[in-house]
Amino acid sequence: VDTRAEKQMEQHINSLTKPLGSLGSLESLAIKLAGIGRSTQPEIDPATVIVMAADHGVTKEGVSAFPSEVTKQMLHNFMNEGAAINVLAQVANASVEVVDIGVKENIELPGLINKKVRLGTNNMMAGPALTREEAIAALETGIEVAEGAIQKGAKLIALGEMGIGNTTASSAILSVLGQTSIENVVGVGTGINHEDKERKIQVIKQAIKINQPNPHDPIDVLGKVGGLEIAGLAGVVLGAAATRIPVLLDGFITSVAALTAVRINPVCEQYLIASHQSVEPGHIVVNQLLGLQPLIDLNLRLGEGSGAALALPIVRSAVHIVHNMATFEEAKISGAKDGSLKGNT
Amino acid sequence: VDTRAEKQMEQHINSLTKPLGSLGSLESLAIKLAGIGRSTQPEIDPATVIVMAADHGVTKEGVSAFPSEVTKQMLHNFMNEGAAINVLAQVANASVEVVDIGVKENIELPGLINKKVRLGTNNMMAGPALTREEAIAALETGIEVAEGAIQKGAKLIALGEMGIGNTTASSAILSVLGQTSIENVVGVGTGINHEDKERKIQVIKQAIKINQPNPHDPIDVLGKVGGLEIAGLAGVVLGAAATRIPVLLDGFITSVAALTAVRINPVCEQYLIASHQSVEPGHIVVNQLLGLQPLIDLNLRLGEGSGAALALPIVRSAVHIVHNMATFEEAKISGAKDGSLKGNT
Repeated sequence: VDTRAEKQMEQHINSLTKPLGSLGSLESLAIKLAGIGRSTQPEIDPATVIVMAADHGVTKEGVSAFPSEVTKQMLHNFMNEGAAINVLAQVANASVEVVDIGVKENIELPGLINKKVRLGTNNMMAGPALTREEAIAALETGIEVAEGAIQKGAKLIALGEMGIGNTTASSAILSVLGQTSIENVVGVGTGINHEDKERKIQVIKQAIKINQPNPHDPIDVLGKVGGLEIAGLAGVVLGAAATRIPVLLDGFITSVAALTAVRINPVCEQYLIASHQSVEPGHIVVNQLLGLQPLIDLNLRLGEGSGAALALPIVRSAVHIVHNMATFEEAKISGAKDGSLKGNT
Repeated sequence: VDTRAEKQMEQHINSLTKPLGSLGSLESLAIKLAGIGRSTQPEIDPATVIVMAADHGVTKEGVSAFPSEVTKQMLHNFMNEGAAINVLAQVANASVEVVDIGVKENIELPGLINKKVRLGTNNMMAGPALTREEAIAALETGIEVAEGAIQKGAKLIALGEMGIGNTTASSAILSVLGQTSIENVVGVGTGINHEDKERKIQVIKQAIKINQPNPHDPIDVLGKVGGLEIAGLAGVVLGAAATRIPVLLDGFITSVAALTAVRINPVCEQYLIASHQSVEPGHIVVNQLLGLQPLIDLNLRLGEGSGAALALPIVRSAVHIVHNMATFEEAKISGAKDGSLKGNT
């Protein structure tokens, strides 16, 4: 990122008609976006939410509150504009692209982007979820999808996901990449009970024991205990960062995907914006590893990109503030008495 | 508020295609809006930000980082669309009404609503800021302004303020009404240093000692240590609540105005929504007294309605979710395995 643009942006913000620093996180966000966009006039519109969907063989082990077929059913719901992400993206003035990167049945739906790498993952309790080649194919698919969205004009990409069982895969990845205990990073997902959560922990332990993913090889981890949508979203981050486009994360799963991308190419980290603090306990862990502070905390645990869509107007506000607010000089407003702000008195 | 509509809304939310409770604060917000609007189809649009501006005689005592004339200068900035609230309201798709309820000079500006009760307050260090009659006139003005906005169609009113010196008056009011120590509720306002903050505390102590406002008579408090824009905003809350319109608060000053309204008429409390957590230490105190939990925390300390505008898209999202999301039944999506959600399997 461009530290000169960041410095210029900071100076510009300090010239605007408001007390110094009084717009808090909006100011640091605008500075970050200036660095990413290498401009004191960064843009985030049009913004696109990329929702990647896939199934997980590990759902056989009873790790989710919902049956596996809900992934497919939710794709229908997305295409009919009936899901939370449809509604929230509309309010946030963002478009939604839904990508089938590995749902376990073949689906044809108008508008659905078919980029299926394979029909769901294998059960990671019994062996690798994906081969290394499949993990790489999913990453490449994500890069392609990001490039496609950017070619169509996207200036910001928000991440979303749908995949029954994907908090299990995300917890496994994070435990390995973060070299932290599984108990630390496992939550209730869409709403399992205490007993199911204990089973989820044992399933992840067993999957890691059997597959022995290499914590220093993120692609190995993505393949052995990951998921197709997680690898795809990691690819989206790689593709967006390569084109200097900011990436707005959603919750736990998208943040784990971003961590994987950062482990593949550390430069990605500078392009990430955390939207919300999820209820999933692993989300705090992954955000700490990424050095990110979420903008909002509304006790969400839905996924789909819902938290990213909710935070998008805040990101847009940061951009519009620097584009459209008057400076003290333009507005002929007196500065602070101690001279910390320039005015005309 | 209508507890039956609240219950019906809760049931409706639980039928939507998402894990139970997974939209967190959005769900409680939608339930609250159903109670306020007495409908499971509450509306918040069009939304209007009412910004009340006035001057404070107490600025003579050096309690603010900015000179008093900035209030007037900022009204020009508002009318030229150059201030933070103009930009943020535009992003949030809200209109802005700016009301001069007591700026210390006469101003005529196209679009500015002239409702001047008097030319600024007296210095509360030397006697009452306002007479009881003036405080009542400011309250009545606020009720009128709210009624006017509602007649023009507003379904939600957000509060904003401009008045150099008004954190001093707000801290004084809160200290008296909340019967809490002044040190607890005084902050740096627009950015004073440690020494000025000490002076601000002494000024408030002296003002309370001289004027002896009665903590059980909110109008007495508003008059003796308050401000015209604070009384006006309290009136807006009274007017909105009387017409069952939700009020979205901004930061410290608007929350103190709302507390005053609640002390005048306790029913007002049910119509309040807290937008953001301000940096001002008194804001936590007043939110606790009001039983409110802010939606966002972005380290803002600007006022003008900026935090309310930033939170507005979240409020809108809560409403659109319940209007536009599909139910499990409509979308033919399987419920949770434990039967906690009804589906079609």
